[in-house]
Amino acid sequence: MPNEPERTGKETGGVSRRGFLGLVGAGAAAAAAGGAGYGIGAARAQAASGAKTVHPFYGTHQAGITTEVQQHLYFASLDLTDSTTRDDLIELLKAWTDASARLTHGQQVTAEGAVGGGPLKPPDDTGEALGLGPAALTITFGFGPSLFTGELGKRLSIADRKPDALADLPLFAFDILEDELSGGDLCIQACAEDPQVAVHAIRNLTRLAFGKAMIRWAQLGYGKTSATSKKQATPRNLFGFKDGTANIMANETADLEAWVWTDADSQPAWFAGGTYLVVRKILMTIESWDRAQLGEQEQIIGRDKFEGAPLSGGEEFTDPDFGAVEADGAFAIPADSHVRLAHPDNNGGVRILRRGFNFVEGNNNLGQLTAGLFFIAFQKDPQQFIDVQRSLKSDALNEYIRHVGSAVFAVPPGVREGGYIGQGLFE
Amino acid sequence: MPNEPERTGKETGGVSRRGFLGLVGAGAAAAAAGGAGYGIGAARAQAASGAKTVHPFYGTHQAGITTEVQQHLYFASLDLTDSTTRDDLIELLKAWTDASARLTHGQQVTAEGAVGGGPLKPPDDTGEALGLGPAALTITFGFGPSLFTGELGKRLSIADRKPDALADLPLFAFDILEDELSGGDLCIQACAEDPQVAVHAIRNLTRLAFGKAMIRWAQLGYGKTSATSKKQATPRNLFGFKDGTANIMANETADLEAWVWTDADSQPAWFAGGTYLVVRKILMTIESWDRAQLGEQEQIIGRDKFEGAPLSGGEEFTDPDFGAVEADGAFAIPADSHVRLAHPDNNGGVRILRRGFNFVEGNNNLGQLTAGLFFIAFQKDPQQFIDVQRSLKSDALNEYIRHVGSAVFAVPPGVREGGYIGQGLFE
Ligand code: HEM
Ligand code: HEM
Repeated sequence: MPNEPERTGKETGGVSRRGFLGLVGAGAAAAAAGGAGYGIGAARAQAASGAKTVHPFYGTHQAGITTEVQQHLYFASLDLTDSTTRDDLIELLKAWTDASARLTHGQQVTAEGAVGGGPLKPPDDTGEALGLGPAALTITFGFGPSLFTGELGKRLSIADRKPDALADLPLFAFDILEDELSGGDLCIQACAEDPQVAVHAIRNLTRLAFGKAMIRWAQLGYGKTSATSKKQATPRNLFGFKDGTANIMANETADLEAWVWTDADSQPAWFAGGTYLVVRKILMTIESWDRAQLGEQEQIIGRDKFEGAPLSGGEEFTDPDFGAVEADGAFAIPADSHVRLAHPDNNGGVRILRRGFNFVEGNNNLGQLTAGLFFIAFQKDPQQFIDVQRSLKSDALNEYIRHVGSAVFAVPPGVREGGYIGQGLFE
Repeated sequence: MPNEPERTGKETGGVSRRGFLGLVGAGAAAAAAGGAGYGIGAARAQAASGAKTVHPFYGTHQAGITTEVQQHLYFASLDLTDSTTRDDLIELLKAWTDASARLTHGQQVTAEGAVGGGPLKPPDDTGEALGLGPAALTITFGFGPSLFTGELGKRLSIADRKPDALADLPLFAFDILEDELSGGDLCIQACAEDPQVAVHAIRNLTRLAFGKAMIRWAQLGYGKTSATSKKQATPRNLFGFKDGTANIMANETADLEAWVWTDADSQPAWFAGGTYLVVRKILMTIESWDRAQLGEQEQIIGRDKFEGAPLSGGEEFTDPDFGAVEADGAFAIPADSHVRLAHPDNNGGVRILRRGFNFVEGNNNLGQLTAGLFFIAFQKDPQQFIDVQRSLKSDALNEYIRHVGSAVFAVPPGVREGGYIGQGLFE
């Protein structure tokens, strides 16, 4: 069962007595404020304006996969440091679990023993999310292939626990991957309705990792480019098209079992109920696209721009008819269109759960936007992604996009209260 | 009078008949959808979830200055191309005015004569904000010093219209400015509750400028770091402190006249009712800050972290008492604290209206966050900013920040329907 969201005012104060005490400091103001009671009240009043949805961190599967897609993402890939031991990693995963449970309730990180607190110590929590509430935050952890292989896999004594399919993706046609935007030993995906809440989560989790792991690359994303529920209006990507129409939805339990959640038969026991996360940083050449005719844009995607209906007719959620032909005998949904090639009918029969975000990060020296799709997909086997991506080799869209980053992570199953994320891997 | 926000369902469809027709395309789906009526209904239903606040573009002053600060920013600095004439610039400003009036109502850009529309032409509007509603969008235009000076000022025949005070800022202590993050002939500030709406506005305005002006640099910001109304809870910057407490607020009309809006006495007539926009890209060394003790952080800012109260006591909005001393005889608000040095009592008596945003853009190869404050301030004379910034020379905060980008723009007054932005400059 996916973790059910809660809506409650209780947690949204964002400050436990402990968290508050950690923050009350040297200032005379602390005394003047009349103690913890006052502070909590003030924080609560502020939180009322924040998003109150709580997605519990604990559950059968990790949250942030089938969870109704939030508006904002901060994603970090981390590498362990050269001295990190198996015990260090376990300790880190425990600290991350505790902190994540608190953060997803809009509470402060209090990490005694990790970074300390009080006026003469650095604050436990960096503070910039105080009063913002849970904001539907989800935190999703994953393990990269490099964690299990080479010297590191040996040092951690987990070389023999690697899922067979966990390996760097093959190089695809047109890939221009940059090493600094690819790979990583661990990943953290933070999604929230408020970007400050997502960035705050990654920042504080990274802080707990001090000396053990450090960020290899990170990505801010805004504006979901897929839906995991038909209750959500389908969002649009930066090419202006609805994106996420033909996704696996959270309520399609049979499809989730068939395509997303790993099972004990084909995977090491610790990884059953998990999934593989594939991430691709894809640049979109916005200016060339914006100069393409509307008709051409629609032929490239295979859907109409306004409604998102397949070019074979109907409305957004009408099944595409790949056999339909136009008066001139050409396919209504062109042979080299994106949705034709990506569809199970033409990609070898597989499906994936897409959960990507738009990004924009300034411009190059020709004034062109540096922007694109931070593509994220979940599947029970990376081969599913590989099959779709290979099918896209003749995609007309390739003229307008460029894959520059790539990584794959094994996302362990969810964790019950008292346990820690990825625990099975160390048992 | 600042432009009053409207809340109305009328404009939120985001699609006029004209805009819709511009988008209905080659796809068979367009016909199947049953004509414009259907499409508009669908877009309206989607928009219901979007933010409905409209800040009208037309008004005495430009919006986006005293406007209740939105959550998201996209800011672009543009340079004219080598061939752009005075007439080209006027045509551009007219097209920008029309488009901005539409965009702030959540409508599509329809720029007949500029980029065209229809199945065999590129769409008038890039489409990715369809259905998102107005989302409180404001668009604010400014003219940089380089527009008036040198060969360009002569080509445009406006060299003699330059406001005297419009000049590049002097270099300040600790500045490490990068040319690619500084300056610009024109600027566009787009603020909205939805980042997609802000980015969409800049993208479509830039598109209208094709061949006339191109982006020099651009910046995405999220999370306001100031308030222009006490109805807004004071937001926090990435150092975790409330930021914007002692700001000039939108209802402080006398202060706005005294410190923000230019008057006809001291400025060229075309610029009366305008203001100067100063922008500084400031990196914050997050990791060092996060290792500073709470007491130290509070001594550096001069306020307590939790409440934002001055260290001389009281609550957030209590006036700081710079004479107050601790038992040991030291100032309660330290001599080198940020708020002491920035306060009018100690900066030579001036005030500015701050309206900045947080930014985060990945990390360096030590794993440290590349993040900071995209500082924006409005003042009737850039000298106000210069005075405050000079006063901050001995600021203890300087150890944790680095100014890397800088620009100043003359923001012309607002425009009435029928006119165009900056019109007075060409009369
Ligand atoms: C910037 C790059 C991309 C853009 C702009 C893009 C855009 C779209 C759009 C507009 C749709 C139609 C609406 C929908 O069903 O969601 C779509 C569908 C789809 N895309 Fe992409 N996409 C991109 C990259 C990818 C990649 C890298 C993959 C996987 C390798 C992928 C897999 C799919 C799949 C599986 C579908 C659904 C096809 C179906 O079953 O009808 N896309 N995409
Ligand atoms: C990353 C850099 C900066 C940070 C983190 C920062 C943070 C703060 C904070 C926390 C406050 C107290 C709350 C408030 O009144 O808003 C404040 C006040 C203020 N800051 Fe900054 N600030 C920065 C840069 C600047 C710059 C560059 C200027 C202008 C040159 C400036 C001008 C002011 C002013 C005028 C005040 C109000 C002082 C008063 O009247 O009490 N700040 N700042």
